[in-house]
Amino acid sequence: MDKIKRAAALITGLNNEIMGLTQNRLDNLTKPPGSLGRLEELAKLIAGITGKEYPVLKNKVIFTLAADHGVSEEGLSAYPKEVTAQMVYNFLRGGAGINVLARHAGARVVVVDMGVAEKIKISKSKSKNFQDEKIGYGTKNMAKGPAMAKKDAIKAIESGIDIFNLEKSKGIDIIGIGEMGIGNTASSSAITSVITGAPVEGVTGRGTGINDNSLVNKILVIKRAISVNKPEPDDAIDILAKVGGFEIGGLAGIILAAAAAKTPVVLDGFISSAAALIAFHIQPKAKEYMIASHCSTEKGHKVILEHIGIKPLLDLNLRLGEGTGAALGISLADAAIKILTEMATFKSAGVSKNIK
Amino acid sequence: MDKIKRAAALITGLNNEIMGLTQNRLDNLTKPPGSLGRLEELAKLIAGITGKEYPVLKNKVIFTLAADHGVSEEGLSAYPKEVTAQMVYNFLRGGAGINVLARHAGARVVVVDMGVAEKIKISKSKSKNFQDEKIGYGTKNMAKGPAMAKKDAIKAIESGIDIFNLEKSKGIDIIGIGEMGIGNTASSSAITSVITGAPVEGVTGRGTGINDNSLVNKILVIKRAISVNKPEPDDAIDILAKVGGFEIGGLAGIILAAAAAKTPVVLDGFISSAAALIAFHIQPKAKEYMIASHCSTEKGHKVILEHIGIKPLLDLNLRLGEGTGAALGISLADAAIKILTEMATFKSAGVSKNIK
Repeated sequence: MDKIKRAAALITGLNNEIMGLTQNRLDNLTKPPGSLGRLEELAKLIAGITGKEYPVLKNKVIFTLAADHGVSEEGLSAYPKEVTAQMVYNFLRGGAGINVLARHAGARVVVVDMGVAEKIKISKSKSKNFQDEKIGYGTKNMAKGPAMAKKDAIKAIESGIDIFNLEKSKGIDIIGIGEMGIGNTASSSAITSVITGAPVEGVTGRGTGINDNSLVNKILVIKRAISVNKPEPDDAIDILAKVGGFEIGGLAGIILAAAAAKTPVVLDGFISSAAALIAFHIQPKAKEYMIASHCSTEKGHKVILEHIGIKPLLDLNLRLGEGTGAALGISLADAAIKILTEMATFKSAGVSKNIK
Repeated sequence: MDKIKRAAALITGLNNEIMGLTQNRLDNLTKPPGSLGRLEELAKLIAGITGKEYPVLKNKVIFTLAADHGVSEEGLSAYPKEVTAQMVYNFLRGGAGINVLARHAGARVVVVDMGVAEKIKISKSKSKNFQDEKIGYGTKNMAKGPAMAKKDAIKAIESGIDIFNLEKSKGIDIIGIGEMGIGNTASSSAITSVITGAPVEGVTGRGTGINDNSLVNKILVIKRAISVNKPEPDDAIDILAKVGGFEIGGLAGIILAAAAAKTPVVLDGFISSAAALIAFHIQPKAKEYMIASHCSTEKGHKVILEHIGIKPLLDLNLRLGEGTGAALGISLADAAIKILTEMATFKSAGVSKNIK
């Protein structure tokens, strides 16, 4: 718990002085002031996060955390539980959506086993992009009792802090976060409902693509999980333990560690944003370090982004997870920083400034 | 005129057979069906446009067409007229927003002088990314009479066809279109109002960032241009001649030629979309080849996109033009095609398919 408190205590506000300099530079680039809209806002935010007038986004890492959920035994997903492990192997071979879009964005994918229900066997050649932080072989069924012990919830967040710090030591300029875990939209809906106070129906979607009957069942199961466990709305660790997941705790830890290290964190979809909600609950200042890449079709996502108070960059009807939206967000961040650092100024280009 | 008719006649519908194969492949990739939302739609559209099951987007070109507008003497812009030429030099030196974002997207920028009000002096080393198609030293003031002669409107579109075909012969897989021209939002508003029937007030914005008084004046000038010239709503060439611009005609020609050559065309903001409106008016089937990269803050843009019936990918409050939004759209198209062509299938990755 001390590790979490230390990380949270290190998180400060943005560097306003640098943001002022950045705004001045943006206004002197050869374009009407503000005409690159959200790209300009993004460049300014990244300058404020990093405290650098000319931020460099060379080392980009997407953390994709995987874990299983005991609640999947209630039949909540369109896919069987073994898909979590199968997809971890797909990530490690480079064939998944996140691999393709991370390559597109020039980012490295670090896959983490936070609690997959089977042992992940990995060859040495692939181990540099893999971290084993398995806390258990999946959580317990939250519809029947707590998903995990409180000490494991703490351990999950602390593992996230360690995961970030290990990679940070190799050099990181920006991160994206994503996940894989059959059943984890149910857990995210429960977290969202408890923290934001929104009704379960308002934050529960079709996940991997379930039908109407399965959706009705999913809502009932989530409601049962909340009524059986009575998570304490003011206690993020209690919520994570009772209705969360190992990967969600790990992602919350990564966010806190990244914010403490003044590193921009690009969120992905609903589940990574549920982790952001946990991190925000622990340290509201962490919000300043979050970049919302997109708004998912999973309806609880919008509720989370509005609760935290961050506006998504993209709205492309994505709902895959893994960090795929975050990869697109990283590419936009890259574009924004190139605008800030590579464009000519009115003076350097000999272009007349505005006259009215 | 024959050249325009020939290009328009070559434009056919999309390749539905290929789109069916693409949908099938997308549904077999290791992700829930449809979970990459608009990226999947985009991949399918590009397959349908190119007629290729595995489209390759290697050679990307953004055409940035520049021209001056006589109507700028009415004081419609926040910038003096000489900025058009100054920005052409900025494009050729690589310091403008479009250069930065085109590099980000892996695209080459081809700058075209369609009618800048001064002679563009260019060194040989930069001439491979420059085409001189100057029709005149700026249009005439549309508030007092036709912006150009009908033969010049035809010539502008035909030049656009030639511009595309010359670059196509060197290899092009996808294009973006953009522009530069002080005064060209006024021309675009006039075109939009005449073609869509929307009131001038509903399609006129602040362009480079004018104040309230200037906006009132701009609306009056556009209304005067329409009442003085009485452009024929059913005749795209007449509209282009009376209230258009040389760069707008050129862009319309590029769109027609690209569609005839089954090449995806990524639109940029309001002005390039006004050109799309002209192309759409000449050949409605050209719509199928258009990809709307974003919706500008310039309010007439939304009216155009709804009139044509295409949905923008991004909404980032952009209003720079030059092709900057198109560059971001090309990057998304690239991502979409990588998803289609690089992701593993359930079978190849040994991942279980959905069970309900």
